[in-house]
Amino acid sequence: MLLKTHSCGTLSKAEVGQTVTLNGWVQRRRDLGGVLFIDLRDRTGIVQIVFNPAFSGEAHAIADRVRNEYVLAVRGTVVERDPETFNPNIATGEIEVRITEIEVMNGAKTPPFPIEDGVEVDEAIRLKYRYLDLRRPEMYNTLLLRSKAAKVFRDFLDSEGFIEVETPILTKSTPEGARDYLVPSRVHPGEFFALPQSPQIYKQLLMVSGLERYYQIARCFRDEDLRADRQPEFTQVDIETSFLSRDQLLEMMERLVAKLLRETVGVEVELPFQRITYADAMSKYGSDKPDLRFGLEIEDITDIAAGSDVKVFASVAASGGVVRALNAKGCANWSRKELDDLQPFAARYGGKGLAWITVKDGEWRGPIVKFLKPEEIAALTERLGVEDGDLLTFSADKPQVVADVLGNLRLKVGRELGLIDDSKFKFAWVVDFPLLEWDEEAKRYVALHHPFTRPRDEDLHLFDTEPGRILAQAYDLVLNGYEVGGGSMRIYRRDVQEKMFKALGFTMEEAYEKFGFLLEAFEYGTPPHGGIAFGFDRLVMLLAGRSNLRETIAFPKTASATDLLMDAPSAVDPAQLQQLHIRTLPKPGAKPGPNAGGQAAAAAGSANGA
Amino acid sequence: MLLKTHSCGTLSKAEVGQTVTLNGWVQRRRDLGGVLFIDLRDRTGIVQIVFNPAFSGEAHAIADRVRNEYVLAVRGTVVERDPETFNPNIATGEIEVRITEIEVMNGAKTPPFPIEDGVEVDEAIRLKYRYLDLRRPEMYNTLLLRSKAAKVFRDFLDSEGFIEVETPILTKSTPEGARDYLVPSRVHPGEFFALPQSPQIYKQLLMVSGLERYYQIARCFRDEDLRADRQPEFTQVDIETSFLSRDQLLEMMERLVAKLLRETVGVEVELPFQRITYADAMSKYGSDKPDLRFGLEIEDITDIAAGSDVKVFASVAASGGVVRALNAKGCANWSRKELDDLQPFAARYGGKGLAWITVKDGEWRGPIVKFLKPEEIAALTERLGVEDGDLLTFSADKPQVVADVLGNLRLKVGRELGLIDDSKFKFAWVVDFPLLEWDEEAKRYVALHHPFTRPRDEDLHLFDTEPGRILAQAYDLVLNGYEVGGGSMRIYRRDVQEKMFKALGFTMEEAYEKFGFLLEAFEYGTPPHGGIAFGFDRLVMLLAGRSNLRETIAFPKTASATDLLMDAPSAVDPAQLQQLHIRTLPKPGAKPGPNAGGQAAAAAGSANGA
Repeated sequence: MLLKTHSCGTLSKAEVGQTVTLNGWVQRRRDLGGVLFIDLRDRTGIVQIVFNPAFSGEAHAIADRVRNEYVLAVRGTVVERDPETFNPNIATGEIEVRITEIEVMNGAKTPPFPIEDGVEVDEAIRLKYRYLDLRRPEMYNTLLLRSKAAKVFRDFLDSEGFIEVETPILTKSTPEGARDYLVPSRVHPGEFFALPQSPQIYKQLLMVSGLERYYQIARCFRDEDLRADRQPEFTQVDIETSFLSRDQLLEMMERLVAKLLRETVGVEVELPFQRITYADAMSKYGSDKPDLRFGLEIEDITDIAAGSDVKVFASVAASGGVVRALNAKGCANWSRKELDDLQPFAARYGGKGLAWITVKDGEWRGPIVKFLKPEEIAALTERLGVEDGDLLTFSADKPQVVADVLGNLRLKVGRELGLIDDSKFKFAWVVDFPLLEWDEEAKRYVALHHPFTRPRDEDLHLFDTEPGRILAQAYDLVLNGYEVGGGSMRIYRRDVQEKMFKALGFTMEEAYEKFGFLLEAFEYGTPPHGGIAFGFDRLVMLLAGRSNLRETIAFPKTASATDLLMDAPSAVDPAQLQQLHIRTLPKPGAKPGPNAGGQAAAAAGSANGA
Repeated sequence: MLLKTHSCGTLSKAEVGQTVTLNGWVQRRRDLGGVLFIDLRDRTGIVQIVFNPAFSGEAHAIADRVRNEYVLAVRGTVVERDPETFNPNIATGEIEVRITEIEVMNGAKTPPFPIEDGVEVDEAIRLKYRYLDLRRPEMYNTLLLRSKAAKVFRDFLDSEGFIEVETPILTKSTPEGARDYLVPSRVHPGEFFALPQSPQIYKQLLMVSGLERYYQIARCFRDEDLRADRQPEFTQVDIETSFLSRDQLLEMMERLVAKLLRETVGVEVELPFQRITYADAMSKYGSDKPDLRFGLEIEDITDIAAGSDVKVFASVAASGGVVRALNAKGCANWSRKELDDLQPFAARYGGKGLAWITVKDGEWRGPIVKFLKPEEIAALTERLGVEDGDLLTFSADKPQVVADVLGNLRLKVGRELGLIDDSKFKFAWVVDFPLLEWDEEAKRYVALHHPFTRPRDEDLHLFDTEPGRILAQAYDLVLNGYEVGGGSMRIYRRDVQEKMFKALGFTMEEAYEKFGFLLEAFEYGTPPHGGIAFGFDRLVMLLAGRSNLRETIAFPKTASATDLLMDAPSAVDPAQLQQLHIRTLPKPGAKPGPNAGGQAAAAAGSANGA
């Protein structure tokens, strides 16, 4: 077997005159009057190899029978091409290899799509033939970037004294919001493991252990209905530290992220990252993950609107809502249709409407203009920096609705005006999240993050008076409008933890029932600790300039949580279910009956009866 | 909050005179006439801190109330101790810290066992309070070693051009021998994911993709009945390569292992590793994972025994069995009881008996001696290198039984004679495994490894004549009597794969049903490839000098596959099962009936009916 001495894509003029052995795939072949040219591809790139009966009749005869995607082993001499045949499109374009020996390592059927970048092919086909899809350079390079990114994380954390610890995948179902994936136990009938939604509890226990600095690139699982940027299993870079202040931790993480950008995409990001409070993010950008690559800030005008003759403004302001405006600079020339489309746009985000004013040739036009008093127009002009050509948009509602409507409008306008520089990586910390939010249905507070999030020291006294005003020592890292990380300092003192549970309406008994082992651990000397988790898939997606998480994962699941390559999930042998002490329920719509439950359940049932 | 400027265990005379802030746990406290000495511990070690009303009355008063495992923050000055109070037992024994400021970060209840090495405490207690167990230096240091070992693997593989790829945890149940853990799908009623027993199929698909060099430190799952060195979830360093010969791969792996030993335990291992065929390992050491730290080889004497008057020797030799002997050097002085115990010892490994001869003062004694002819004694003397003081032991049976009996006797004798140097790391490759073994029950050949293992090129012709004699391009890495790695070159040519399936008694239809997606992938240009997987938990166990896998895993499961800390597995909310379209079966022994199945199943059933 001819085994490679060199890689295809890295050959250069330095090897001219050398005899090399290459292994790779046939990208394409051309027969130019008895001389065969093959582009041979391996993971490093492509090189042109030449078969000429003058070099070897035997090799030429064999090469004549190969087709695309055949696996070849070839030996030959590197020669410089004639300058007029240089190929500037490939790195090896100034040389070629004259082949004297060839071995067909393997043949190949015609692939279902061309092995090249930018193919237009249904994603389902790409996923079914993922092993071919991953041959395409853009896919290979994304996997390579992902591997490099993991290395940067590890190298940095190793250098800072972090210890990598693997935490269990077979663990306990915990009340954490999202649905758990369950695993029936064979040894303990009727009992189940759960796959972890995150290593949160384990990493806090490791801090109780005194490990001080922990990390893990951890697989996590959530059985949620999927969106483009969700996967049932995903990867997070999970970090926890003891004896650090919030600012010490954030500063360290900024250095980590800067190194990541430098070593994966060659970008220098500016340190320190901007910090923006949750309240400011929501009011200025209408989002807790603002895209800060452009300005176009939302302005609160509730004070101006309170006395307005625009009825909805006045009534919303009077009932505790907010009125905010976005000045879409230079959009006064939007068509009537575009302006009309603002109403369904607002509705999509829960808004009841979106008022607008165009400013053209010094004149304000729009349905609400006639209700505005001159002093209101003056105040708006100043607040919104109104200039000729602007389109002013207004939303009046509960703060969350206004934020959603104007935040999304801001993104739409930003994109349409070309304000977003796609080459920019703009990080920021969103801080000072509320600790609690009021659950209207349950008539009680719930934790915005989780019940172990530490309140700000200066807000502790509010537990007794206004818990809803307590701010948490929680932080999210946002990048270009995506949340790419999040964490908090954790509660470590029993008195604070008890106040937290009380605020959530738990008795200590209920708290112990839900979080007993962690609370018990907290009684044996728990250090102050806090951490963060980075969404690794999403970070890689943004670094690679992709817009779909599936492009960053070697073998992803579809939006309906199936693996098209392996055909998973799938039916299993009824005997397996029997061993696990479970049976399947009748499929929805199947006729109910004592023996119903699909073939598998029926078989399991009869095995049980036997 | 007083946050650390230094770590406890790394303070030295270099810091004398400096003011330092330390954070850590109270290891112990002594009150020597109004002066308080506390050993403060963090992950780096221990330092003595001193509270004297003369330094600070307030700090002394607070320190007077602290107890073991309290978490302290202290500030003070590093001073050199009087030489007569040097403590040579700790690294910081020549200094202490005079404390002027103290903050009790957290209190602690009395722990259920002392936080120190070598504690005699029931393992169940240690597992329940794992977060305290991990505070013990020997546990922390093992986790640290594990983290370092992972880093060495990654650094080496990165430097050799390997790409780390994460493969799915939610995958498809495949016919691979061991039982799968299953995960019911909520979205696809009646269907299940399986947790991977290894990433075998994915890594072969990545080779079809042209990734060329893949690795992953991968979590794997087997629902098997557990032994001391098994865990339901375990970690393997998973490696696959294309375009390498077996010898190129093994040489690379040897350099990897040498680096691992050098950088984790500071041991230089000799390269290249010894290679021993499976046949030799079984006949000379009675094991396919021989402990080569000592000699004491087993000798085949079937030829000598064939004509013997020892009836069992002659009859076994005549019926195709083997007669082998182990010369337990210098054991002629074993007591009668020790010699009698050889029979039950043999029985434990399936042997029908174990003949023995003592050689003392030139005289051979033992039950079979009277049946031996002088020429047989002469032949045995030469073959076994018999000297005065030796104990000769003989086993006659089928080869596997003789190997088990004498292999285990060899280990017992080696240990008892002190032939095993525990500081030694003796690696070897076991090669040339049989490709197939005959399954007496199924009356057909089964794959010794898996159906994708490549036969030796020179044995391909045996598929048509004697498949049982084909040797595989498979290899195991053994260390001190443990298998720490294993792999093979894989079949990549369709004609060979078809022969393999034929030898296994499969039709191509059956083969496609079982391995369809992989076989299909193989038709699109599969390169020659092969790989290996290292058992990471076991390697770490041997590097750390431990004898139990659980000591190397932060949060292990017990032998009955339970997590005593989290109390997993556990019963779950019936509504969860309902969403997953499953119900639990009646517990064994429960009265069967239409609504049986334990509380959970009954509730799920009624929810279903509603």
